[in-house]
Amino acid sequence: MDLNKIPRHLLREEDPIFAFNKAIIDATHHLCVAYKPNTAFYEAYGIKGWKSLEKTIKYLNKNYPNIFTIADAKRGDIGNTSSMYAKAFFEDLAFDSVTVAPYMGKDSVEPFLAFDNKHTIMLALTSNEGAFDFQTRNTEGKELYKQVLETSKTWKNANNLMYVVGATKARYFKEIREIIPNAFLLVPGVGAQGGNLQEVCAYGMSENIGLLINSSRGIIYASNDQNFADAAAESAAELQQEMSMLLKKHNAENEE
Amino acid sequence: MDLNKIPRHLLREEDPIFAFNKAIIDATHHLCVAYKPNTAFYEAYGIKGWKSLEKTIKYLNKNYPNIFTIADAKRGDIGNTSSMYAKAFFEDLAFDSVTVAPYMGKDSVEPFLAFDNKHTIMLALTSNEGAFDFQTRNTEGKELYKQVLETSKTWKNANNLMYVVGATKARYFKEIREIIPNAFLLVPGVGAQGGNLQEVCAYGMSENIGLLINSSRGIIYASNDQNFADAAAESAAELQQEMSMLLKKHNAENEE
Repeated sequence: MDLNKIPRHLLREEDPIFAFNKAIIDATHHLCVAYKPNTAFYEAYGIKGWKSLEKTIKYLNKNYPNIFTIADAKRGDIGNTSSMYAKAFFEDLAFDSVTVAPYMGKDSVEPFLAFDNKHTIMLALTSNEGAFDFQTRNTEGKELYKQVLETSKTWKNANNLMYVVGATKARYFKEIREIIPNAFLLVPGVGAQGGNLQEVCAYGMSENIGLLINSSRGIIYASNDQNFADAAAESAAELQQEMSMLLKKHNAENEE
Repeated sequence: MDLNKIPRHLLREEDPIFAFNKAIIDATHHLCVAYKPNTAFYEAYGIKGWKSLEKTIKYLNKNYPNIFTIADAKRGDIGNTSSMYAKAFFEDLAFDSVTVAPYMGKDSVEPFLAFDNKHTIMLALTSNEGAFDFQTRNTEGKELYKQVLETSKTWKNANNLMYVVGATKARYFKEIREIIPNAFLLVPGVGAQGGNLQEVCAYGMSENIGLLINSSRGIIYASNDQNFADAAAESAAELQQEMSMLLKKHNAENEE
């Protein structure tokens, strides 16, 4: 959510960010399985922003309790601090999941994994150019992100782990699936960042699909006019239909 | 700041966390060069917590403008998101610096570095046990944290970079100083985590000292009684005196 990108007429609302979110959610909930607020865009507005975030997750949990919610927060710190972050996102804000960074290792992630019925989504191979700075470096015989995948599989409550793999890295999905055949992957980078959905599905689907495809800016900023919510729904519907066709193809091939 | 650890009598205050911080700051400001609020402990209390954080940084900037402030937030995301985090901590909250994670690479950190007169403190070798999961793994011929140090030196505005190196990893400081002889290091892990101050200084001091030694729990939770602020000041004074002696020793040796 970026106040510079949302329709001007919403700035007259008491809480423009929440008004924007509510309109987008109401217009797209039948086309989505998950929402992923990006905490940075709330923190940038201080207390007001945090209030908008709280109102948004409360609205989602009350009105659409079956939709999966992701706090895209990229947190991670020493154990006692990670416990507080887990408390912030799983208890105080009541998100279903939160994204975390792997750099600080096991004891920085396990406090999140300790929560039952919550999911921890760890960065593996991200969608940005900077992914090539460290994530793909050869680390003891394989790329660092593969070490991250293999090592994290051994952590306590690893069944609560999901991973971020960017859609812009489609050709990597095949090898990733060899390490984590069944894990759920959160896949950002379709849309504004240019990732290819067909390739992602071709290489990334597990037996149980196992992909959560995310498009943010491509949907929420489809228009910044009065009709923004309808435009978002149209953009979401397009992606949903494309995914639906790819799912049918996947199912047909698996039945052959 | 942990509501379970602060003196009971403060819970009667309207904002117990800020009341605690204010008392600690007023009692220790003459013994410190920096304060480092840990954002997780505020986020865990939602809007109330974020308010306490805002009041704390405002109080510091107003009353002790010469003291360096660090938002210990461990942030990092794709470029446009990192820009919003930088805005949150450098502009909205007006911290002098923020801690960031390196996993997502150059374009996740450069938006922080773009701020003049602000410092970005990147994780290199952290104080926790999980540091051995990835940070010390052999990555193209050297430990990952060394690749992080060497690579980040080439980033735009790298002169605004500082690094986190844990006090519990004292024997690593010598080799770190070979890569970044003059960079400022934020050194947590003295106190509750068991790092050895003498060893850190022996191996980690640069020509211009270049160390910012951090003790958090060892000082702020020195007592949870009515006298907690005095106890914190005593604990801070002990550490300050120990550091003062080590500085004198360093200066004497350099004059020989």
